[in-house]
Amino acid sequence: MPTLVVEVMPKAELLDPQGKAVHGALSRLGHANVTGVRVGKRFEITVDEVNDAVIAEVATIAGEILSNSVIEDVVSVREADAR
Amino acid sequence: MPTLVVEVMPKAELLDPQGKAVHGALSRLGHANVTGVRVGKRFEITVDEVNDAVIAEVATIAGEILSNSVIEDVVSVREADAR
Repeated sequence: MPTLVVEVMPKAELLDPQGKAVHGALSRLGHANVTGVRVGKRFEITVDEVNDAVIAEVATIAGEILSNSVIEDVVSVREADAR
Repeated sequence: MPTLVVEVMPKAELLDPQGKAVHGALSRLGHANVTGVRVGKRFEITVDEVNDAVIAEVATIAGEILSNSVIEDVVSVREADAR
Protein backbone atom coordinates (compact mmCIF):
# COMPACT_ATOMS: atom_id res chain seq x y z
CA MET A 1 0.00 0.00 0.00
CA PRO A 2 1.43 3.44 -0.91
CA THR A 3 2.42 5.55 2.07
CA LEU A 4 2.62 9.31 2.50
CA VAL A 5 4.90 10.81 5.13
CA VAL A 6 3.80 13.91 7.04
CA GLU A 7 6.39 15.74 9.11
CA VAL A 8 5.35 18.22 11.78
CA MET A 9 7.75 20.39 13.80
CA PRO A 10 7.24 22.97 16.54
CA LYS A 11 7.32 26.54 15.18
CA ALA A 12 10.90 27.76 15.10
CA GLU A 13 10.21 30.84 17.20
CA LEU A 14 8.69 28.84 20.05
CA LEU A 15 10.59 27.33 22.98
CA ASP A 16 10.93 23.57 22.51
CA PRO A 17 11.30 22.17 26.06
CA GLN A 18 11.54 18.60 24.78
CA GLY A 19 14.33 19.57 22.42
CA LYS A 20 16.12 21.49 25.18
CA ALA A 21 15.94 18.44 27.44
CA VAL A 22 17.39 16.15 24.78
CA HIS A 23 20.10 18.69 23.99
CA GLY A 24 21.01 18.95 27.68
CA ALA A 25 21.27 15.19 27.97
CA LEU A 26 23.46 14.94 24.88
CA SER A 27 25.76 17.67 26.23
CA ARG A 28 26.12 15.86 29.56
CA LEU A 29 26.97 12.70 27.62
CA GLY A 30 29.78 14.55 25.88
CA HIS A 31 28.23 15.14 22.46
CA ALA A 32 29.63 18.65 22.11
CA ASN A 33 29.16 18.61 18.31
CA VAL A 34 25.42 18.91 18.85
CA THR A 35 24.46 22.58 19.21
CA GLY A 36 20.68 22.20 19.24
CA VAL A 37 17.83 19.70 19.12
CA ARG A 38 14.20 20.10 18.10
CA VAL A 39 11.66 17.30 18.44
CA GLY A 40 8.64 16.87 16.19
CA LYS A 41 6.31 14.21 14.86
CA ARG A 42 6.39 11.97 11.83
CA PHE A 43 3.26 10.31 10.47
CA GLU A 44 3.11 7.50 7.96
CA ILE A 45 -0.32 7.60 6.27
CA THR A 46 -1.17 4.49 4.26
CA VAL A 47 -3.62 5.20 1.45
CA ASP A 48 -5.37 3.17 -1.25
CA GLU A 49 -3.66 5.03 -4.07
CA VAL A 50 -1.60 8.19 -4.50
CA ASN A 51 -2.89 10.92 -6.75
CA ASP A 52 -3.11 14.69 -6.53
CA ALA A 53 -6.50 14.57 -4.81
CA VAL A 54 -5.30 12.16 -2.11
CA ILE A 55 -2.11 14.16 -1.52
CA ALA A 56 -4.21 17.33 -1.19
CA GLU A 57 -6.53 15.51 1.24
CA VAL A 58 -3.58 14.33 3.36
CA ALA A 59 -2.12 17.84 3.31
CA THR A 60 -5.45 19.15 4.65
CA ILE A 61 -5.49 16.41 7.30
CA ALA A 62 -1.91 17.36 8.24
CA GLY A 63 -2.75 21.03 8.64
CA GLU A 64 -6.05 20.61 10.43
CA ILE A 65 -5.80 17.37 12.44
CA LEU A 66 -2.21 16.12 12.72
CA SER A 67 -0.76 19.47 13.75
CA ASN A 68 -1.73 22.38 15.96
CA SER A 69 -1.30 25.36 13.65
CA VAL A 70 -0.81 27.69 16.62
CA ILE A 71 2.41 26.03 17.76
CA GLU A 72 3.42 23.68 14.94
CA ASP A 73 4.27 23.79 11.24
CA VAL A 74 3.73 21.01 8.70
CA VAL A 75 7.25 20.65 7.34
CA SER A 76 6.45 18.30 4.48
CA VAL A 77 3.91 15.92 2.95
CA ARG A 78 5.57 13.49 0.54
CA GLU A 79 5.48 9.90 -0.68
CA ALA A 80 7.44 7.61 1.60
CA ASP A 81 9.79 6.20 -1.02
CA ALA A 82 10.08 9.50 -2.90
CA ARG A 83 12.92 10.66 -0.56
CA MET B 1 24.01 25.93 11.20
CA PRO B 2 23.77 22.62 9.35
CA THR B 3 20.98 20.35 10.54
CA LEU B 4 20.63 16.58 10.48
CA VAL B 5 17.18 14.99 10.55
CA VAL B 6 16.65 11.76 12.47
CA GLU B 7 13.41 9.87 11.90
CA VAL B 8 12.24 7.20 14.35
CA MET B 9 9.19 4.99 13.88
CA PRO B 10 7.64 2.22 15.99
CA LYS B 11 8.66 -1.25 14.78
CA ALA B 12 6.29 -2.38 12.04
CA GLU B 13 5.32 -5.59 13.80
CA LEU B 14 4.25 -3.80 16.99
CA LEU B 15 0.79 -2.43 17.74
CA ASP B 16 0.79 1.37 17.38
CA PRO B 17 -2.06 2.55 19.64
CA GLN B 18 -1.40 6.19 18.80
CA GLY B 19 -1.58 5.43 15.09
CA LYS B 20 -4.76 3.40 15.59
CA ALA B 21 -6.36 6.30 17.47
CA VAL B 22 -5.50 8.78 14.72
CA HIS B 23 -6.73 6.37 12.07
CA GLY B 24 -10.02 5.89 13.94
CA ALA B 25 -10.52 9.64 14.17
CA LEU B 26 -9.80 10.13 10.47
CA SER B 27 -12.29 7.38 9.58
CA ARG B 28 -14.99 9.00 11.71
CA LEU B 29 -14.24 12.29 9.97
CA GLY B 30 -14.90 10.63 6.64
CA HIS B 31 -11.33 10.21 5.36
CA ALA B 32 -11.96 6.75 3.89
CA ASN B 33 -8.89 7.03 1.62
CA VAL B 34 -6.68 6.60 4.67
CA THR B 35 -6.19 2.88 5.40
CA GLY B 36 -3.62 3.16 8.17
CA VAL B 37 -1.62 5.61 10.30
CA ARG B 38 1.64 5.17 12.19
CA VAL B 39 3.07 7.88 14.43
CA GLY B 40 6.77 8.38 15.09
CA LYS B 41 9.26 11.06 16.02
CA ARG B 42 11.34 13.49 13.99
CA PHE B 43 14.44 15.13 15.44
CA GLU B 44 16.30 18.08 13.98
CA ILE B 45 19.87 17.99 15.30
CA THR B 46 21.85 21.18 14.71
CA VAL B 47 25.60 20.58 14.50
CA ASP B 48 28.71 22.72 14.02
CA GLU B 49 29.61 21.09 10.73
CA VAL B 50 28.57 18.01 8.77
CA ASN B 51 31.17 15.37 7.99
CA ASP B 52 31.23 11.59 8.07
CA ALA B 53 32.34 11.51 11.70
CA VAL B 54 29.50 13.80 12.84
CA ILE B 55 26.91 11.85 10.82
CA ALA B 56 28.21 8.61 12.37
CA GLU B 57 28.02 10.22 15.83
CA VAL B 58 24.42 11.35 15.24
CA ALA B 59 23.53 7.89 13.94
CA THR B 60 24.89 6.42 17.18
CA ILE B 61 22.94 9.00 19.20
CA ALA B 62 19.81 8.08 17.22
CA GLY B 63 20.19 4.38 17.87
CA GLU B 64 21.16 4.60 21.53
CA ILE B 65 19.45 7.71 22.92
CA LEU B 66 16.76 9.04 20.59
CA SER B 67 15.08 5.69 20.06
CA ASN B 68 14.22 2.62 22.10
CA SER B 69 15.68 -0.20 20.02
CA VAL B 70 13.25 -2.69 21.58
CA ILE B 71 10.15 -1.01 20.12
CA GLU B 72 11.44 1.52 17.61
CA ASP B 73 13.53 1.65 14.43
CA VAL B 74 15.66 4.55 13.25
CA VAL B 75 14.21 5.09 9.77
CA SER B 76 16.77 7.59 8.54
CA VAL B 77 19.57 9.99 9.46
CA ARG B 78 20.11 12.60 6.74
CA GLU B 79 20.96 16.25 6.17
CA ALA B 80 17.90 18.45 6.46
CA ASP B 81 18.10 20.07 3.05
CA ALA B 82 19.37 16.90 1.29
CA ARG B 83 15.74 15.71 0.68
